[in-house]
Amino acid sequence: VHAVHESAVIQLIASRVGTRTGVDVGIGDDAAVIACEPPLVAAHDMVVEDVHFRWGTSSPADVGHTALAVNLSDVAAMGARPVAALVGLAAGPDLGADRDPSAVVAALYGAMEELAAATGCTIAGGDTSSAAVTMVGVTVIGRMDPGVPPVLRSGGRPGDLVCVTGALGASWAGLALLRGDLPADGVPEAGALRAAHRRPRPRTTEGPALASLGVAAMMDCSDGLAIDLERLARASGVSAVLDLDSVPVAAGVAGVAAALGRDPAEAAATGGEDYELVVALPEALLPHCRAALGTPLTVVGRLDEGPPALRVVRGATPATLETLGWEHRV
Amino acid sequence: VHAVHESAVIQLIASRVGTRTGVDVGIGDDAAVIACEPPLVAAHDMVVEDVHFRWGTSSPADVGHTALAVNLSDVAAMGARPVAALVGLAAGPDLGADRDPSAVVAALYGAMEELAAATGCTIAGGDTSSAAVTMVGVTVIGRMDPGVPPVLRSGGRPGDLVCVTGALGASWAGLALLRGDLPADGVPEAGALRAAHRRPRPRTTEGPALASLGVAAMMDCSDGLAIDLERLARASGVSAVLDLDSVPVAAGVAGVAAALGRDPAEAAATGGEDYELVVALPEALLPHCRAALGTPLTVVGRLDEGPPALRVVRGATPATLETLGWEHRV
Repeated sequence: VHAVHESAVIQLIASRVGTRTGVDVGIGDDAAVIACEPPLVAAHDMVVEDVHFRWGTSSPADVGHTALAVNLSDVAAMGARPVAALVGLAAGPDLGADRDPSAVVAALYGAMEELAAATGCTIAGGDTSSAAVTMVGVTVIGRMDPGVPPVLRSGGRPGDLVCVTGALGASWAGLALLRGDLPADGVPEAGALRAAHRRPRPRTTEGPALASLGVAAMMDCSDGLAIDLERLARASGVSAVLDLDSVPVAAGVAGVAAALGRDPAEAAATGGEDYELVVALPEALLPHCRAALGTPLTVVGRLDEGPPALRVVRGATPATLETLGWEHRV
Repeated sequence: VHAVHESAVIQLIASRVGTRTGVDVGIGDDAAVIACEPPLVAAHDMVVEDVHFRWGTSSPADVGHTALAVNLSDVAAMGARPVAALVGLAAGPDLGADRDPSAVVAALYGAMEELAAATGCTIAGGDTSSAAVTMVGVTVIGRMDPGVPPVLRSGGRPGDLVCVTGALGASWAGLALLRGDLPADGVPEAGALRAAHRRPRPRTTEGPALASLGVAAMMDCSDGLAIDLERLARASGVSAVLDLDSVPVAAGVAGVAAALGRDPAEAAATGGEDYELVVALPEALLPHCRAALGTPLTVVGRLDEGPPALRVVRGATPATLETLGWEHRV
């Protein structure tokens, strides 16, 4: 395979599978929805050696943490609270080459358990195997609060504001520092930026809070705000505007971007792996949402009538992006 | 890692994780149990290239079918009916080398969808990635029938009969034929034996039927009847006797075993990958269970007072096995 866009593969798969009783939402959102009272959601994402991480820039604990975090983020983006995680660990030879295998496994699951404990989730099962490369596949099952329906990508309506939690670009800048693309001594925030890449914090309480307030659409921006907002717009059947001037850029990202000759807002809007939430909501809801969150909620655009597509601007001026974010290949 | 018994790794993991609200059964059974009315169960198993299968003896459709089947089997072994499957496909370069990648993906998911449709399950989501080897990790979420509690490995009591559904050894014999360990022309059942290995049929209706009748303990015998019965005995805190003379040997296995100089009952009891159910039940329940199933339920042993261990006999005579079944290494 290796040359096919993931989106094409997902379309191919979705075209071949049917939905039967017991499943309310299947392929195509951040998580599936299982009919239940209250509804359950379930997400499954993998992290694969040499695709999603390299041992040079990630420790076993980083890999364990991240494999769980990306799925907690998907569950949060539906508005659900995490309940259980199932973990499939395929252990490559590098896990045991010059290290004590038990210590590596303990570190990987230890970091995962720390994050699970902090978010109310239980590592409840899974599988282990040897393999030619290391791969961690995690399924997280979450539960909606009573009376709160899951928030889909497809709920956005013309006129909705597009908002993003927290700030963006820290993971991108952290990876650049970890790879040695620039010296760290000119970057006082280097430690925090590296940590943002190695140990992303999913928005596990913010997602349910926004869902309970009735936001229209939500997803996590794991591949980049621009590409993920385009996906939200397509799923909602509306057009979207993204204003680069409004994008909240994390502390320290401007310095890294300057050193690499990149525009900071562009890097923040397309870097990916920040695991912030992108939310579409009617303007009247904004103050309530802001009051409910312990983190900033920044308006970065708007949904409009029109063909499903993304328009990028800087204030009143049309702008272009070299790339919208990560487009995975399979 | 690669030199550590999977059971030791699972113990290491289980010792490091806590169970929080919402999870009734965590690591250690065929599936986790999520608190819900009725309860949900969730299982996650992977199939890994060059560990669980080789492209020489398995087609993409075989791999897709099997990856779903092994998880349907785990869910059935709790007594639950399958609802949703999440599929993580890591596609190795062999998937695209001399074949059309889209056709391979279509075949893999097509076989999975066929099995999902036949068992009332929905392929509801997942993830795809490239990787250095192919690996399919599947999570199946199942639901108990109303009023039926999940059947655990730990419910066996002294005096319970040990029974097994169907017949054993076909997958072992089929793999021997697929590998060319013997010529197929002397084996009239060769086609059925190969199919048993390439497309195992999980006991998706038998598991719920046995659970609703109140059997004491249940698990699937994926690694071999002997090793899996030993696990059931340990979990139940009782000893177990396995009578090789009683083991139901699938049609054609005796011929393959003879050609390879193996004892057919031994091969059937330790070959693994048949995905039959091992059940412990009070003797009075046996006729009801037999009447409810469309497949034979054979008494192969008994649980007794005594230290958790497996004793193998042939009728009244003590016997030994070279191996109890597959002990995976990580």
